[in-house]
Amino acid sequence: MTSEMSIRSSDAPLVERAEDARGVVTLTLNRPDAFNALSEAMLDALQRCIDEAGANDATRVIVIAAKGRAFCAGHDLKEMRTEPSEAYYQSLFDRCSRLMMAIQTVPVPVVAQVEGIATAAGCQLVAMCDLAVAANSARFAVSGVRLGLFCSTPSVALSRNVPRKIAFEMLVTGDWVDAEEARTHGLINRVAADEDVATEVEALVASICAKPAVAIRAGKTLFYKQLEKPIEEAYAGAAHCMACNMMAEDTLEGVQAFIEKRKPDWA
Amino acid sequence: MTSEMSIRSSDAPLVERAEDARGVVTLTLNRPDAFNALSEAMLDALQRCIDEAGANDATRVIVIAAKGRAFCAGHDLKEMRTEPSEAYYQSLFDRCSRLMMAIQTVPVPVVAQVEGIATAAGCQLVAMCDLAVAANSARFAVSGVRLGLFCSTPSVALSRNVPRKIAFEMLVTGDWVDAEEARTHGLINRVAADEDVATEVEALVASICAKPAVAIRAGKTLFYKQLEKPIEEAYAGAAHCMACNMMAEDTLEGVQAFIEKRKPDWA
Amino acid sequence: MTSEMSIRSSDAPLVERAEDARGVVTLTLNRPDAFNALSEAMLDALQRCIDEAGANDATRVIVIAAKGRAFCAGHDLKEMRTEPSEAYYQSLFDRCSRLMMAIQTVPVPVVAQVEGIATAAGCQLVAMCDLAVAANSARFAVSGVRLGLFCSTPSVALSRNVPRKIAFEMLVTGDWVDAEEARTHGLINRVAADEDVATEVEALVASICAKPAVAIRAGKTLFYKQLEKPIEEAYAGAAHCMACNMMAEDTLEGVQAFIEKRKPDWA
Repeated sequence: MTSEMSIRSSDAPLVERAEDARGVVTLTLNRPDAFNALSEAMLDALQRCIDEAGANDATRVIVIAAKGRAFCAGHDLKEMRTEPSEAYYQSLFDRCSRLMMAIQTVPVPVVAQVEGIATAAGCQLVAMCDLAVAANSARFAVSGVRLGLFCSTPSVALSRNVPRKIAFEMLVTGDWVDAEEARTHGLINRVAADEDVATEVEALVASICAKPAVAIRAGKTLFYKQLEKPIEEAYAGAAHCMACNMMAEDTLEGVQAFIEKRKPDWA
Repeated sequence: MTSEMSIRSSDAPLVERAEDARGVVTLTLNRPDAFNALSEAMLDALQRCIDEAGANDATRVIVIAAKGRAFCAGHDLKEMRTEPSEAYYQSLFDRCSRLMMAIQTVPVPVVAQVEGIATAAGCQLVAMCDLAVAANSARFAVSGVRLGLFCSTPSVALSRNVPRKIAFEMLVTGDWVDAEEARTHGLINRVAADEDVATEVEALVASICAKPAVAIRAGKTLFYKQLEKPIEEAYAGAAHCMACNMMAEDTLEGVQAFIEKRKPDWA
Repeated sequence: MTSEMSIRSSDAPLVERAEDARGVVTLTLNRPDAFNALSEAMLDALQRCIDEAGANDATRVIVIAAKGRAFCAGHDLKEMRTEPSEAYYQSLFDRCSRLMMAIQTVPVPVVAQVEGIATAAGCQLVAMCDLAVAANSARFAVSGVRLGLFCSTPSVALSRNVPRKIAFEMLVTGDWVDAEEARTHGLINRVAADEDVATEVEALVASICAKPAVAIRAGKTLFYKQLEKPIEEAYAGAAHCMACNMMAEDTLEGVQAFIEKRKPDWA
């Protein structure tokens, strides 16, 4: 498969990486002929891009977009089928789970820009992003069950986004859910006309970039930590996080500006 | 009460059991004059039916339906009132909880076919099923509070289906929720015209039966396990489950067929 | 600030307290010029009022309402800004968290009557109440991030009310959500025309007061406990709670009355 060259290849990287002056990193899945399937090389490329973006203090937001008619069709089944061993599959799914967790643990918001279909681990990718904007024509499915492979790892992400009966139905039927339904159920934040998806993503991104980085970074990390704790422990962690956040220079200036009814000086 | 004869009684079993060639087991609550209340005998009959269906590898799906104007009106209050002791009530509610948990742990999907009212433990029964289809005229309430008995055990199931403020309101008011609201909140999957409920249930059942049993069984078990774990642990369990699932003969064939763009040979 | 006098001041208490013959305690935030901001004195006043109401066995319901154009605008930023130390902020947020937890642990339902804006810890206050009714013109935001202060403690409450992607978007953008959206997402129960908010709150309150206190009290406590437990443990606790509830005199009478098709005698 010629499209499976390394991300370092200049003519056809698996993941195109762009960064603007604000620190917005856009990662574009670039394997359109294979519906941007998550081959081993694609998993590696995405993992590396997210790790690098996370390690850079200048990064403010990560957008995950895709080329072609699919956002992402999940695992690369052809590649998977060539090595039928439990050990290989275990390692592959662990690797994919590591990437999915990296999206949650990277301390900047990750926004999915969904155009076309998002199936199986591609649907999981959307679910794991902090925010998601979808084209009106986008469609979602955890469709592995149609081939006899229940989307178990995607179910972890999906069931943390949508009500459990909805998740269960999607998982045992493999049926399509359109963008409006996905929004209603909580899988995505916004639906835009197909030609306006990038604009709607930019609106979210611009809103985030207008806030001090220190608040967003501390906040995202705290958000997922507290979600998994009993409420008393969650409050203890959140109070500590917020006290530290309050002491940041930008925050003290932001509060002072609010009191003085002027714009904060966050130059 | 003549309707309280044993499930073994040939003329009027408390739970009618039917099984088709696909392994679809339909359990029909058959105590319509008592609104299919969950008397001790009814709890036993249902428990036995679910245990038996779960023990049979040929079972693919369980449907819980009901005769008469009620799906299920919860506990049998008349029976309950005759033995006013805390020990008896504790044992009764434990028994009911064991039945409810059996619906979740039996390794095949359980679908509620709801016609008429589902109140108190009857509403809980709907909430505990993996999937639920309701008639347009069906209504739901956790109404024990109207008699002074807060639906505590139903609250366990209900609060895992619907947002907490919605659950709390239903529990303290005992008010009715209609089928459309129940769907909006996540208590049920689908609403059908009264005359189409069985057809809509059959659509879900047929979709599940068209998938390999190995995937559905492993998937359901994993789904509820991972829901209660921190996300990293959830992923570890899911990756293991999916690796095992991938090694199943039907799954390898399903993936191969997908690659070759043909129908899988799952005969 | 003249409005910052103690709750004991007779002319302008920070929290107005009214109690009717049914045991409905209405706490009205009374610092309208400061948008009912949660100054230290306001936190203390509210804590005291809730503790007192909770300690009184005659209390049936607590309503939290507010005077002026805001329900509550969160922390008192001016007061906060005067003491920029991490230790102070930690203690302040801990204190606020203690108040929020008291709303959940007080054994009677707490209903938020939301007119005007509810921002930051004010939005958290709504989220922590068991039930919430909002005016059609009410608006909600976790807006701290606009000043550089991520609403970490509010996120604990918000993320337990609404789907996580919705919560995350509100937290990183600080954007407004109107009453209808808030209802759709699960942050509030009901939306009323601006002139009907009190009537709608009264409908909920009356419904709760019509039920035996013993059921509501045991039920609320159980509800939040079981939410944080694995489902098997949740059921064990709920079965025990329900068995005790069933033995209450009012409950035995309620069930008996139901069987005899008459009104219960709960005088």
